[in-house]
Amino acid sequence: MSDSVCNAIYQELSAIRLIDPHTHINPLAPASTTLADILGYHYYTELAHSAGMPKGLIEEEGISPKAKVERLVRHLGPIENTAQHSWLIHICQKFFGLEGHRLDETNWETVYDVSETKMASADWAETVLNESNVEAVFLTNDFDDELTQFDPNTYIPCLRTDDLVFHLGKDSTQQRLESCTQIQIGDSLSCLRNSLENRFEYFISNGARACAISLPPNFSPDRISDGRAETALSDVLRCGANADPANQVALSSRIFWTLAELCDQHGLPFDLMIGVNRGVYRDGVFQGQDLYDSRVSLIQYRELFNAFPNVKFPISVLASVTNQELVSYSWIFPNVITNGHWWYSNTPSFIARDAAARLEAVPQTKQIGYYSDAYKLEFVLPKFDMYRRILANILGEQFVKQNNWSIERAVELGRRVLRDNVESIFPALGDKKKA
Amino acid sequence: MSDSVCNAIYQELSAIRLIDPHTHINPLAPASTTLADILGYHYYTELAHSAGMPKGLIEEEGISPKAKVERLVRHLGPIENTAQHSWLIHICQKFFGLEGHRLDETNWETVYDVSETKMASADWAETVLNESNVEAVFLTNDFDDELTQFDPNTYIPCLRTDDLVFHLGKDSTQQRLESCTQIQIGDSLSCLRNSLENRFEYFISNGARACAISLPPNFSPDRISDGRAETALSDVLRCGANADPANQVALSSRIFWTLAELCDQHGLPFDLMIGVNRGVYRDGVFQGQDLYDSRVSLIQYRELFNAFPNVKFPISVLASVTNQELVSYSWIFPNVITNGHWWYSNTPSFIARDAAARLEAVPQTKQIGYYSDAYKLEFVLPKFDMYRRILANILGEQFVKQNNWSIERAVELGRRVLRDNVESIFPALGDKKKA
Amino acid sequence: MSDSVCNAIYQELSAIRLIDPHTHINPLAPASTTLADILGYHYYTELAHSAGMPKGLIEEEGISPKAKVERLVRHLGPIENTAQHSWLIHICQKFFGLEGHRLDETNWETVYDVSETKMASADWAETVLNESNVEAVFLTNDFDDELTQFDPNTYIPCLRTDDLVFHLGKDSTQQRLESCTQIQIGDSLSCLRNSLENRFEYFISNGARACAISLPPNFSPDRISDGRAETALSDVLRCGANADPANQVALSSRIFWTLAELCDQHGLPFDLMIGVNRGVYRDGVFQGQDLYDSRVSLIQYRELFNAFPNVKFPISVLASVTNQELVSYSWIFPNVITNGHWWYSNTPSFIARDAAARLEAVPQTKQIGYYSDAYKLEFVLPKFDMYRRILANILGEQFVKQNNWSIERAVELGRRVLRDNVESIFPALGDKKKA
Repeated sequence: MSDSVCNAIYQELSAIRLIDPHTHINPLAPASTTLADILGYHYYTELAHSAGMPKGLIEEEGISPKAKVERLVRHLGPIENTAQHSWLIHICQKFFGLEGHRLDETNWETVYDVSETKMASADWAETVLNESNVEAVFLTNDFDDELTQFDPNTYIPCLRTDDLVFHLGKDSTQQRLESCTQIQIGDSLSCLRNSLENRFEYFISNGARACAISLPPNFSPDRISDGRAETALSDVLRCGANADPANQVALSSRIFWTLAELCDQHGLPFDLMIGVNRGVYRDGVFQGQDLYDSRVSLIQYRELFNAFPNVKFPISVLASVTNQELVSYSWIFPNVITNGHWWYSNTPSFIARDAAARLEAVPQTKQIGYYSDAYKLEFVLPKFDMYRRILANILGEQFVKQNNWSIERAVELGRRVLRDNVESIFPALGDKKKA
Repeated sequence: MSDSVCNAIYQELSAIRLIDPHTHINPLAPASTTLADILGYHYYTELAHSAGMPKGLIEEEGISPKAKVERLVRHLGPIENTAQHSWLIHICQKFFGLEGHRLDETNWETVYDVSETKMASADWAETVLNESNVEAVFLTNDFDDELTQFDPNTYIPCLRTDDLVFHLGKDSTQQRLESCTQIQIGDSLSCLRNSLENRFEYFISNGARACAISLPPNFSPDRISDGRAETALSDVLRCGANADPANQVALSSRIFWTLAELCDQHGLPFDLMIGVNRGVYRDGVFQGQDLYDSRVSLIQYRELFNAFPNVKFPISVLASVTNQELVSYSWIFPNVITNGHWWYSNTPSFIARDAAARLEAVPQTKQIGYYSDAYKLEFVLPKFDMYRRILANILGEQFVKQNNWSIERAVELGRRVLRDNVESIFPALGDKKKA
Repeated sequence: MSDSVCNAIYQELSAIRLIDPHTHINPLAPASTTLADILGYHYYTELAHSAGMPKGLIEEEGISPKAKVERLVRHLGPIENTAQHSWLIHICQKFFGLEGHRLDETNWETVYDVSETKMASADWAETVLNESNVEAVFLTNDFDDELTQFDPNTYIPCLRTDDLVFHLGKDSTQQRLESCTQIQIGDSLSCLRNSLENRFEYFISNGARACAISLPPNFSPDRISDGRAETALSDVLRCGANADPANQVALSSRIFWTLAELCDQHGLPFDLMIGVNRGVYRDGVFQGQDLYDSRVSLIQYRELFNAFPNVKFPISVLASVTNQELVSYSWIFPNVITNGHWWYSNTPSFIARDAAARLEAVPQTKQIGYYSDAYKLEFVLPKFDMYRRILANILGEQFVKQNNWSIERAVELGRRVLRDNVESIFPALGDKKKA
């Protein structure tokens, strides 16, 4: 970063201890155990596959972590231009002594061995958190996750609800729900609601600070009457995936609406991640099959936003084209909040334009700047650092140079979207958290 | 603005006396009378509300202007990052002696008192126009506005037609139309047309230089046959909002088409402001309830553009995603003209990208660079100044530095889109204007 | 280009000999014969017309080339701001001795005369190729083009299939197909397939390296069963444009799918140019009538991409809003490749943002940076040069300055997208080519 103003802001932002408001970290195995956990991240497997590496080579059963890394390293050349690759290099430089900007056949084994040793340390996760300047990370918990075996001050539970809204028709979902709640749903809407409420109570009492869901582009939630919902529930529970599609849609809408009611009742923010189509590339690698139709609009959520003025909806959009709507809806709806830069929009040029549009038009208290979406702790650092550099550039160029702000004032705005808003928007609610 | 080339261009552009081609100024009360007129602008009330200020606090009946300002000032903190806030500060610095970049509890009362004194001056509007380097502003007149009580050389009438196209079913609209034209519509299409023509004649003879309308994203005008239109008219006049929705759509389309015919006949440009959904946030503050569905296309207007080759259509789009279509349609259709940066696209990053795309691909004679959309004269200055800075940056970076243009040539292009095109695209037509 | 890093990269990129992977060059008359071929390019006629030049003045029958140029020159003033105009000036400066940045009434005749002399030279096409640093250009051949009369190492055939997919209902298309293949289609799907296969064999044996098609925004290809396709074929062959629209759609889909099968069988890449609506502006000048509806999604092609994993699909999108989908689909689908900046997206600001998004997230081996789309060889230079400058800026600013790449590494990435990928993605397949 050559510019001195932007660089000064970047340095200040880097000193801010982070709370990462959305990850897929497993609190019982938060950090990597081998470099295969790093290189096995879907960003590398899907990009390597896209560039020609056969899926069979990546996903062969029984292959050792070291052999898997060796294979993937041989296919990194075509993706060295990508932002995703730069995260990998950043991790290897920061944590495992890599010099230079390539992980290739000449150096991977050294890095592998260094990383193996470091990762074997009992306090590796703690080390990564500290060296990454991270205080806590939000999790993505299944509704039936056990939440008592980790520290919710570091690993903050979040109730992920995709299965409940979109897959209640599966026997496995029903069984998991009945098993963790000890409530039989039968055909009863009220039993269904009770079991959902059970989950809210369990999660909040164990430190959960958000409810979350990812939604397909054609989802448009609306109030479903009890009668209509009962018919739908009955059909879906009986016929599963063979139920009348209209009933599946109605039931999804009803359950989603009930979740919003429970968020309202319990004061829990409801993260909406809008726009993903699952399984578009059927033969893609694991977690590398989902895409989207960018023709989605927040107008699909107008009734929701009107119906729940007291529920905070931090919203992520998958395609940058939806960012302006997100800015506009956040600009007038008190309960709509901008949230991070998701997945296919999480590369520098999309972040830069989307973040700039938010910073200039959405109240500064209603912007959650970034989350890592990481599966392993090592990724929090390079992803947040990418964002910090972009944020520092926007603050330096637009606010300091164009608008004559002081550096201090620009850093204050950066701190707010990087850290402060995470705490004010997702307050601790439950008993355990307070303890 | 640190760059010397861009700054030189900016200085030249600032010296150009402006005609603002679209405002909501009331010609009988064009400037503010207290700071509450400034802070009461929907940009501040809706942003403050979005950031947590209760609507009741903003819109309480009977509250004094000074009390209202005090309340709003206490809620400006969260929106200090916004471009909209920068307009407020610019106004207070320029006109009311504010020092620094904040209006807060420590200084608002001084600013209030200074502004009250200044605004009480009989020539305040004239002062604002002069200090803003503004020669004239276009108005947004209801079809039944009285146009004879102000100087149409400074306050240029514009016939706004939303009520006619979308609300003829309301008794009040019919009564207003019959009252100002002295023509009974009955169920007769030809009487309806005569009454519309009456409005065109009245407006043009009183100096109007444009017809205008804002349109929802799903509007797609088409020719409606006489028979179909008669049925629709009859149903809508009889049943109002309870008329068959298909008849409401047909009648809207028919009236809109008739307006285009009258524009053709009278040589009046027809401003189309495309894409707004009214009342999306039902409990929003006054004028802070409208949003949009960005899934709109100018292909919806293909028949219109083909049918009226001699009508100039200056077009504004609400979402930046539609800007490329606007560029492309203006690039080949002689009657399609780019017009300003509207509402949710009127913040720096959207203006910058949309203006750049236009400047590089649309004939320079077919671009109306900017309008303020202001309700009070004080806002013309900061809004145009925001645009001038962005325009100067594009001209300096892209045209001078990248394309090796001279600064003089770049300023000429700037002058054209800032001022000259307003005069060539909206010529004076009527008798009074010539007088 | 003031910046030294970007300029150094630009100089290196300019030294790379090009293969232009998509043009409309006529190999029997590849270069212009008068300046009317340059100024007659639809970019100038449509922009001049859009800015007010009557169509009749442009397209008058029997007008001499010189008179046509004189007329157009008088209407260039309003379009001097456009990128398209800068191509014209670049050509006139580079090849015909123009000084300054204007072609106007004072100098056009000199330029005309110089160009006429130069173009009369027997080796003019060769000269243009050499001075433009171009080794070869891809053509856009009708399916019944004769391919044996030119050197396919310089003029590389490409089978364009719009007529087959969308216009088989026309008698002329059927007759042309039967005439060049000597196969009677009758009502037989297998005869139709045989005739298509005949074209593939003919094209590949004559050096073709791509199949290509442009597609309207609402096209969504899918497998059509034999029975359904037979019904459709029969109806369309009998009734032409009067056939049941559903049958026309089904037949288009079937033929398109068959073409993909033949690409698969023969190893030919299938260029998809997605998003154009033909004839939107009915009274537009020649080739200046087409526009689009930007509401298109690559999700419409999901079944195609899944069904043909071994067919390379270089994809161009007409609207920049679709670029992020293109990036995302290329990022995970091995067979989806980004291809150039098409038509209404071929101006600097759209190229800059679309190219940056690709360079940071799509494997570098899967990006075809640019093609000229030129009708005459003279346009290859200015269009590619525009792209090279933008590419050099992105590489310099993002990769060198932000990401700390070396200039050499940045140039390597540039070389890959500018040249190397054209050769690796479109390999020579046929006998003649190898000879």
